[in-house]
Amino acid sequence: MVSSGIPSLDKIIEGGLNEGDVILVAGQPGAGKSTLGVQFTYNGATQWNQAGVYATFVESASKLKRNMLRFNWDLAELERKKKINLLDLVQTIGERGVEVNLDAIMTAIKDIGAKRLVIDSLSGMMTYIQTKAEARSFVALMNRFLEEAKCTTLCTLEVPWARSDIGMGFEEFMADGLIVLESSLEQFKVRRRLYIPKMRGVNHALDCYDFYITPEGINVSPIPAARR
Amino acid sequence: MVSSGIPSLDKIIEGGLNEGDVILVAGQPGAGKSTLGVQFTYNGATQWNQAGVYATFVESASKLKRNMLRFNWDLAELERKKKINLLDLVQTIGERGVEVNLDAIMTAIKDIGAKRLVIDSLSGMMTYIQTKAEARSFVALMNRFLEEAKCTTLCTLEVPWARSDIGMGFEEFMADGLIVLESSLEQFKVRRRLYIPKMRGVNHALDCYDFYITPEGINVSPIPAARR
Amino acid sequence: MVSSGIPSLDKIIEGGLNEGDVILVAGQPGAGKSTLGVQFTYNGATQWNQAGVYATFVESASKLKRNMLRFNWDLAELERKKKINLLDLVQTIGERGVEVNLDAIMTAIKDIGAKRLVIDSLSGMMTYIQTKAEARSFVALMNRFLEEAKCTTLCTLEVPWARSDIGMGFEEFMADGLIVLESSLEQFKVRRRLYIPKMRGVNHALDCYDFYITPEGINVSPIPAARR
Amino acid sequence: MVSSGIPSLDKIIEGGLNEGDVILVAGQPGAGKSTLGVQFTYNGATQWNQAGVYATFVESASKLKRNMLRFNWDLAELERKKKINLLDLVQTIGERGVEVNLDAIMTAIKDIGAKRLVIDSLSGMMTYIQTKAEARSFVALMNRFLEEAKCTTLCTLEVPWARSDIGMGFEEFMADGLIVLESSLEQFKVRRRLYIPKMRGVNHALDCYDFYITPEGINVSPIPAARR
Amino acid sequence: MVSSGIPSLDKIIEGGLNEGDVILVAGQPGAGKSTLGVQFTYNGATQWNQAGVYATFVESASKLKRNMLRFNWDLAELERKKKINLLDLVQTIGERGVEVNLDAIMTAIKDIGAKRLVIDSLSGMMTYIQTKAEARSFVALMNRFLEEAKCTTLCTLEVPWARSDIGMGFEEFMADGLIVLESSLEQFKVRRRLYIPKMRGVNHALDCYDFYITPEGINVSPIPAARR
Amino acid sequence: MVSSGIPSLDKIIEGGLNEGDVILVAGQPGAGKSTLGVQFTYNGATQWNQAGVYATFVESASKLKRNMLRFNWDLAELERKKKINLLDLVQTIGERGVEVNLDAIMTAIKDIGAKRLVIDSLSGMMTYIQTKAEARSFVALMNRFLEEAKCTTLCTLEVPWARSDIGMGFEEFMADGLIVLESSLEQFKVRRRLYIPKMRGVNHALDCYDFYITPEGINVSPIPAARR
Repeated sequence: MVSSGIPSLDKIIEGGLNEGDVILVAGQPGAGKSTLGVQFTYNGATQWNQAGVYATFVESASKLKRNMLRFNWDLAELERKKKINLLDLVQTIGERGVEVNLDAIMTAIKDIGAKRLVIDSLSGMMTYIQTKAEARSFVALMNRFLEEAKCTTLCTLEVPWARSDIGMGFEEFMADGLIVLESSLEQFKVRRRLYIPKMRGVNHALDCYDFYITPEGINVSPIPAARR
Repeated sequence: MVSSGIPSLDKIIEGGLNEGDVILVAGQPGAGKSTLGVQFTYNGATQWNQAGVYATFVESASKLKRNMLRFNWDLAELERKKKINLLDLVQTIGERGVEVNLDAIMTAIKDIGAKRLVIDSLSGMMTYIQTKAEARSFVALMNRFLEEAKCTTLCTLEVPWARSDIGMGFEEFMADGLIVLESSLEQFKVRRRLYIPKMRGVNHALDCYDFYITPEGINVSPIPAARR
Repeated sequence: MVSSGIPSLDKIIEGGLNEGDVILVAGQPGAGKSTLGVQFTYNGATQWNQAGVYATFVESASKLKRNMLRFNWDLAELERKKKINLLDLVQTIGERGVEVNLDAIMTAIKDIGAKRLVIDSLSGMMTYIQTKAEARSFVALMNRFLEEAKCTTLCTLEVPWARSDIGMGFEEFMADGLIVLESSLEQFKVRRRLYIPKMRGVNHALDCYDFYITPEGINVSPIPAARR
Repeated sequence: MVSSGIPSLDKIIEGGLNEGDVILVAGQPGAGKSTLGVQFTYNGATQWNQAGVYATFVESASKLKRNMLRFNWDLAELERKKKINLLDLVQTIGERGVEVNLDAIMTAIKDIGAKRLVIDSLSGMMTYIQTKAEARSFVALMNRFLEEAKCTTLCTLEVPWARSDIGMGFEEFMADGLIVLESSLEQFKVRRRLYIPKMRGVNHALDCYDFYITPEGINVSPIPAARR
Repeated sequence: MVSSGIPSLDKIIEGGLNEGDVILVAGQPGAGKSTLGVQFTYNGATQWNQAGVYATFVESASKLKRNMLRFNWDLAELERKKKINLLDLVQTIGERGVEVNLDAIMTAIKDIGAKRLVIDSLSGMMTYIQTKAEARSFVALMNRFLEEAKCTTLCTLEVPWARSDIGMGFEEFMADGLIVLESSLEQFKVRRRLYIPKMRGVNHALDCYDFYITPEGINVSPIPAARR
Repeated sequence: MVSSGIPSLDKIIEGGLNEGDVILVAGQPGAGKSTLGVQFTYNGATQWNQAGVYATFVESASKLKRNMLRFNWDLAELERKKKINLLDLVQTIGERGVEVNLDAIMTAIKDIGAKRLVIDSLSGMMTYIQTKAEARSFVALMNRFLEEAKCTTLCTLEVPWARSDIGMGFEEFMADGLIVLESSLEQFKVRRRLYIPKMRGVNHALDCYDFYITPEGINVSPIPAARR
C-alpha cells in the first residue's frame, strides 16, 4: 500500500493506493487538484522516503514552488536533495511534444528512482493528441510503463467551468481509480466535497466527504456528508 | 440456460442467459462491470466446468489478476488449468487492430473450447472503428460467430462520467440483452443499482435492485428497490 | 382496415391500420418493438390469411425464431407454409447494401404476395445512408412501392438508451403513423406505455396506455393511464 | 384579408391573414399541420372561390386525398374543377430538385391563378439545400415571388419528435407569421394547443388555445387555455 | 443623448442612447424587434429631425411599409422627404454580398446625413460570413465606421424559436448595449418583457419590464415586473 | 501583494493579487468586466504609482475613455502622463494578428515599465487561433512572459449570453485565478454577484458576494450573499 499523503483520505481507501496504479483526480478550477498532487509527492518524499516526479503542464514550476510555501512545503529543498523532480512542461513543443514529454517523465522517474508521479494535468499533456484512438493508445502505453516501474501515479483531469463531464470519456475507464473533487456553488457558497466512484481492488467508501484546504494541506472530514 | 455466475442475478432472469447470446453490461467507472465479468467467467469455470475467455482492453491482465484475488478468484490458477484464457489487449495496435483482436478472441475461444466470453470493454475494442456503419457491420459479424460457437458473451460498455448515453447508440439494439449498472450520487452517497431494460426471450424483472460488491463478488438484493 | 394483430391496440385506432400505410414503432431497447412486429406478422398470417415479410437487421433469424416460441409463435412452420418470409439482413454488405436490401424485400413481397411487412429496424436498414437528403429520397421511394403494393408496413425505429429523439428527425413526418413504446424508469421500476402521436386518416386515441408483454404477446390496457 | 379557412382561428388574428404573406405552421408529427393546410386550401376554393396549390413533400397525393375524405373534403373533385392543384413532390429529384420544385410550384400557381399555396413541408422542400446561406437566399426568392403573385401561403415546418427547435433557425424570422401547433404529452395524454408567437401587421392573440380535430376539420377553442 | 424614440424606454436608460453607439436588440420571432427599430427611426425623423437608414434583411420593404401603417407610421412619405432611406437587402447576393451590403448602408448614411441606423437583422446581414473570426472583423469594421459617422445604431439579433442563445456568441460583447425582448410562454400566454443586461456608459435599470405593442408602438411599463 | 484596485475585493483575497499572476475575470455581457479592468489599472496608476497597459479588443479606446469619465477616471490624462497605455486592438488584422497583438502588448509593457495589464478580452484576442492546442501554447507563452515581467494581469473572458461555460475550457486551468462576475436574472431583476472559484496561493473566500457598480466603480458587499 502506498499512502496518499493525506491520512484522512487513506482512511476511506483501506489505507492507501495500490503500488503502480494510476489514479485520476478530476476537478473544476480551484478544486484543489494541484494541492493534493503536491501533498502526495511531498509527504511521500518526507515521510516515506519515496522519491517523486511532479510534471506540471499548467502552472509554472516557479509559481508552484512559491504557492506551496504557504503549506510549508519547500519543493526547492527537496529538489536539491534529489527527492523530487519538478518538471516544468507548460510550454508544449508542437505535435511531437506528447512523446517528448512522456520521455522526459520516464527519464526523470528512472533518474531518481521515483515511486510516485503526478501529471498535472493529463488534459494538458494530451493537448496535441487529436483522436480518441491515439489518446487511448497513449494512455495504454503510459499505464504499462508505470505499472512496470511500480510508480504510483496521480493524474489530474480538468473539468471545465460549468461542465461536469471529463476528458475524452475513456480516461476514467483506463485508470485504476477516480477521485472527484467537487467545488460546486451551493446556497451562494462554494462547497468542496470529495468522493471516489472507482478504486480498483480497494473496498473504498461510497460516501461524499466535505474537505478543507488547511494550512497543512487537504483535510478530508471523517464524517460522510450525508450524516452531517 | 447459462448461469450468470451470480445466483441473485439469475433469479430475476428466469435462471440464466440464453446460450450464445450477447449481453451488454453498461455502467459508469466503478460500477462493477469488470467484477461482474470475472465472476461470470470464474464461476462458469469452477462451478459449471465451462471454459471462458476474458479479453481485457482497459485493465492490464496482471492488475486484473491481482485485484480479483480479493474475491479469492485465482485467475492465474485457472489459466494454468486451461479453464480461462485471459487476453491482455490493452495496447491496441493501430487501425488494423480491430480485426486482429477479433481473430485473437476467436482463436482463444476455439483453443479451449470456451462457452463463455467477456469483452471488457466493447468501447475499448471498437476504438479504432470510425463510422457507425463499420461498427454495426463489425458487431453483426461478431454476433454471428458467437451464436454459432454457442459462446455466451458479456460485453461491458463504458458510460462516461457525468453522461448517461452509451456507445454509438446502436449496440443496445444489436445485443440480446442490456444490464445497466447504475452508480449514481444520491444524498451524498454513491448508490449501486442494477436493472435490465432488455433481455430477449427472457421474462426478466422490470425492477431496479440495489446491489453490493461483497467479499464473494456481486450480490443483488432480492427485494426490488421500489419496495424497500 | 388491416388489423394490427393486437386487438387491444386496434380498439384505440378505429379498428386497424389503413392498407398500404407505413407506421413507425419507436422505442428504446427492450421496449417490445420486435414482439409487436412479429405479432403483427404472425397474427396476420394465421388469423387473416395475409402473408407477411419480416426483414430483420438487428437480431438473427435463428434467435428470433427461438425467442418467439415463448409466445407459441412458430415462425419456422409459417415459413414452410409460405405465409411468412423471414429475411435475415443483419450482415449488411457495404454501401451498396441499402439498395440490395430493398430489392430483397421487394422481391420477397412479390414472391409470397405479402400484404404485411416489418422492417426491424429502419435505423439498421439505413445505416449506410450518410446524408439526410439521401435518406429522405430512399424513404420516399420505399413508401411509394409499399403503397402501390398495398402492403401495410411496420418499421421499428431505435431510440438509443438515455435519449428520446428518433432517427434523423424526418422519418416520423414521412410515415403515416407513429406508435411510441415507452419503457422509462419510474420509481425504480421500468414502466411500459404506448401512445400514438400520429396516425393519418385515423381518429386515434390521444391517451397513454400501459401495456404488458404476456405469454400471448403484447396486451394494451383498455383504460388510459391518466384514469388509472 | 384572407380567411384562414378556420373561422375559430380567424377570430384570434383580426379576421384573417394579410394577402401575399407567408405563414409558417410548425408542429411535431401528428400535430395537425396537413389538416390545417388542406382546410385552408379547400375552404378557400369552396367558400371564397380562390384557387389553391397544395405542394406535398411528405405524404403522397393519393393518400392525402384518401385521408381528407374523412372530413368530406373531396380534393379530387376540386382538381377536376381546376380549383386546386395537388402537386405530389415527395420523390425529390437530386440536388437540382429544389429549383425544379420551385418552378413547378410557380407554374402551378400561374396556371390556375392560385391565390393560396401550401408547402407541406418547407423542411421537406429544402432537404437538398446544404448551407444556411443558400437556404436563406432560397426563401428570400420564394417570398418575393409569392408577394408579387399576391398568393397567401402556409408552409408547414417539421418539429422532430422529442425536440422543440424548428428548421435551420432563420425561417421563423423571414416568414410573416408563425403558428405553433403543440401536441405535448401532459398527464399521460396528448394535448393539442395552438398559439401564435408572430403575425406581422396583425394584432394577434397572445394566448394559447386548445384545439380539436373534429369531423369538420380543425376547431380552435374560443376560450384561452389560461382561463379554462 | 439620442432618444430611443420610445419615451418609456428612455426613462430606464438615463434619457437615451449615447451618440454613435451600436445597440443590439435580441428577441425571438414576434418579439417586436422590427417595431422597435422602425419606431426608433420614425420618431427620430419626425420628432428630432434626424435622418435614418433602415436596412432590412428579413422583411421586404413593401411589406414593412404596409405593416407599419397600423401605427400611423408612413415610411413612404418620409422616404420622399429624404428623412428615411429604407434599404431592401432581403435578397442577398452571394458571398460578396456582405461587403456590398455594408457599402450600400454606408453610402445611404452619407447620402441623407443619417444619424440613425437600423440593421434588421444582423443575423441576416452576416449569413454569408462563415467563420467567427471573419464575423468579428466585420463587426469591428462596421462599429468603427458608425462611431466616426456619429450614427446611433440598433441591430436586431435573431433568437431562434425554442432557443435562448444569440448569434455567434461574441456580438453582445462588441456592441455597446444589449436590449433583450423576451416573449416567453407563461401559463399558456405569451408574455412580452424587456430588460437590459448591458448598456455601456449608462446607469441603466436592472429590472425586467412588461411591454406592450399598442396602436402607438411599443410602450414599456413604468413599473418593474418584480413589483407588479 | 498587488491591490486589485477595489478595496472591497482585496478584503476577500487576503489583501490582493500575487505579483505576476494572470487572473481571469469571466462574465456575461454587462457584468462589469471592463469596469473592473479599468478600475484595476486606474487605481494602480493613481494610488500605487504602477503603470498599466489596457489592451482592448472589444470596445474602441475612444468609447472606453468616454464611458469611464462617468467614474471620474480620466484615462486620457493618465495616457499623457505615461501612466497608462490604452491599446486599441479592436480591428484584428488577420491570422497573423495574434502574434502581432501580443508583440504590441509586450512592447507597451516594456515602454512604460508597466506592472499591470488588462486584456479585454482574452476571447477577442484569441479569435484567430483555431485549435485548442495552439491556443494552449499561446497562453503558456504569454503567461511565461508576464511572470518574468512581474506584470500582474487581468484577462476578461466572455461568457456568451444564455450560456455559462467559458472560453475553450482550458483557460481557467492555466490561469492563476478565476473571478466570476454573475449577472443572472432573478425574480425579473438582474442580480450581480461575484465569487472566486480559484486563486492560487491565496486563502480566498468561498462565498458569493453581491456587488454594485457605483459612481466610484465596483463595490463588493462585505457580507456574503448567503448571510443576507
